[in-house]
Amino acid sequence: MKDLKQITVLGTGLLGGSITLTVMRSFPEVKAVGWSHRESTRQRARDEHIANEIVDDICESVREADIVIAATPICTFEGIFEEIARALPDGCIVTDVGSTKMMPGVWARQKLGANVHYVGSHPIAGSEQRGVEFARDDLFYSAACIITATEQSDGEAVKAMERFWSGLGCYVSFMTPQEHDRVFADISHLPHAMAAALINANDDETLKYAGKGFMDTSRIAGGPANIWSDVFLTNADNMAAGIERVIGELEKLKAAIGEADRSKLEKLLRQAKDKRTKLINYKMKKRELS
Amino acid sequence: MKDLKQITVLGTGLLGGSITLTVMRSFPEVKAVGWSHRESTRQRARDEHIANEIVDDICESVREADIVIAATPICTFEGIFEEIARALPDGCIVTDVGSTKMMPGVWARQKLGANVHYVGSHPIAGSEQRGVEFARDDLFYSAACIITATEQSDGEAVKAMERFWSGLGCYVSFMTPQEHDRVFADISHLPHAMAAALINANDDETLKYAGKGFMDTSRIAGGPANIWSDVFLTNADNMAAGIERVIGELEKLKAAIGEADRSKLEKLLRQAKDKRTKLINYKMKKRELS
Repeated sequence: MKDLKQITVLGTGLLGGSITLTVMRSFPEVKAVGWSHRESTRQRARDEHIANEIVDDICESVREADIVIAATPICTFEGIFEEIARALPDGCIVTDVGSTKMMPGVWARQKLGANVHYVGSHPIAGSEQRGVEFARDDLFYSAACIITATEQSDGEAVKAMERFWSGLGCYVSFMTPQEHDRVFADISHLPHAMAAALINANDDETLKYAGKGFMDTSRIAGGPANIWSDVFLTNADNMAAGIERVIGELEKLKAAIGEADRSKLEKLLRQAKDKRTKLINYKMKKRELS
Repeated sequence: MKDLKQITVLGTGLLGGSITLTVMRSFPEVKAVGWSHRESTRQRARDEHIANEIVDDICESVREADIVIAATPICTFEGIFEEIARALPDGCIVTDVGSTKMMPGVWARQKLGANVHYVGSHPIAGSEQRGVEFARDDLFYSAACIITATEQSDGEAVKAMERFWSGLGCYVSFMTPQEHDRVFADISHLPHAMAAALINANDDETLKYAGKGFMDTSRIAGGPANIWSDVFLTNADNMAAGIERVIGELEKLKAAIGEADRSKLEKLLRQAKDKRTKLINYKMKKRELS
């Protein structure tokens, strides 16, 4: 990438470590720097050679960065932006990889100086594993990455971030932060809440009989509670609306069952089945499913 | 199996056809007879050689059967039991493979004569495919099969059904119909209702962004609407109770998000994660997951 000399990743977990690893391969002329809050994590990152350099001090780590990528839990961004604001060089691009995009944008406007550009990123990559030991240089291969920009965003910075994520192997698309958070509430955060609710609604003895259907339906509830709390809390209004809509749909099913209204019940179940079939056909066509 | 000369399967779909196929392999001395409502289905069953004989008339098909297995949609059982009652030979065992067990038991008591024995069966096998073309002789291999019996059940008939399903490759266990329907409402029928509600709560445009998590969470909503309507309608009270409990859990999450109560929210998500981890460990130990 032209003019890109250094990127700094704050938080060298699975995502952050995978970014530095992939940068070292895809942009070998760029210096990949990592920082992590804990000394033990920094040491593991050094042991795993996941970056060209692991720096102890957060401000030192960003002082010469062209792009700074926050890859820590969402609710730490506000403090991190405040802490690094005065150390960031002029023209630096700050981004983050949080799963919600409105609040990070708000914090960026409040805490970062006018001398830097903020652009939101959401690479749809990850795994159930956590920690730098699981970092891989193919985590972003063929992954979708949403870049969130507003009318206030710097056009050059947005283009630079598009080149960056594309270079890491992502398919990049664009949304406003509002649009992003509404869509991801519905197709990602809401399913997580439902998986958690399904498990919590059952006792351990009953769960022992769970089969493949239950395990699939509840799989995503295995994600880390603190990370998902951040996601839900920074997308509160959309989550509340989504949960309300799902409760409404559950009430419809319950009513049809209670009234023994086969035609109404079958219509609801057929609607779901048909929508899912349509979705699968769409995704097959787009080659998002094999 | 001692004394077993003929079994008759009513309904030669995926499940029914797989039963006759497996009987032909596991009990080669037993005559496997099939019947199906439609001539076209009977013809396909003959073309696929899934039984020793496919009989056109339902009463003729059961006249010499030692075991009759209803493998049609649950809500047809009542009519079928009524239709075959007078054709069944003395001492014949009637069973069914429906996913709910209380209503089939009620219909058996109402419609079948005192000269035959009813025992409920629920082999936990199937696939997203339907129809005799997908029948396989390994569908029951290592599958769980719940036999439902009450204090009124004939002990010998229950033992015969245990030998039958074991011979087909199932791990057999026992429950009362009440216990069965409560447990399966919670771990099978309720997840299906939630998957349908999740899809119906979202519009097609939003669904296009669905990722792996969403696809997993909603997978079971791809099942046939008429079959699942039967399941829900014959398990109405348990379904209503399950939906209420899930709505209660969703309300708890919504409240914690609305109040920005991180500690409450994280506790709920951690509870779900921990219960699921415990469940996975249990299933690994029981070798039900690999």
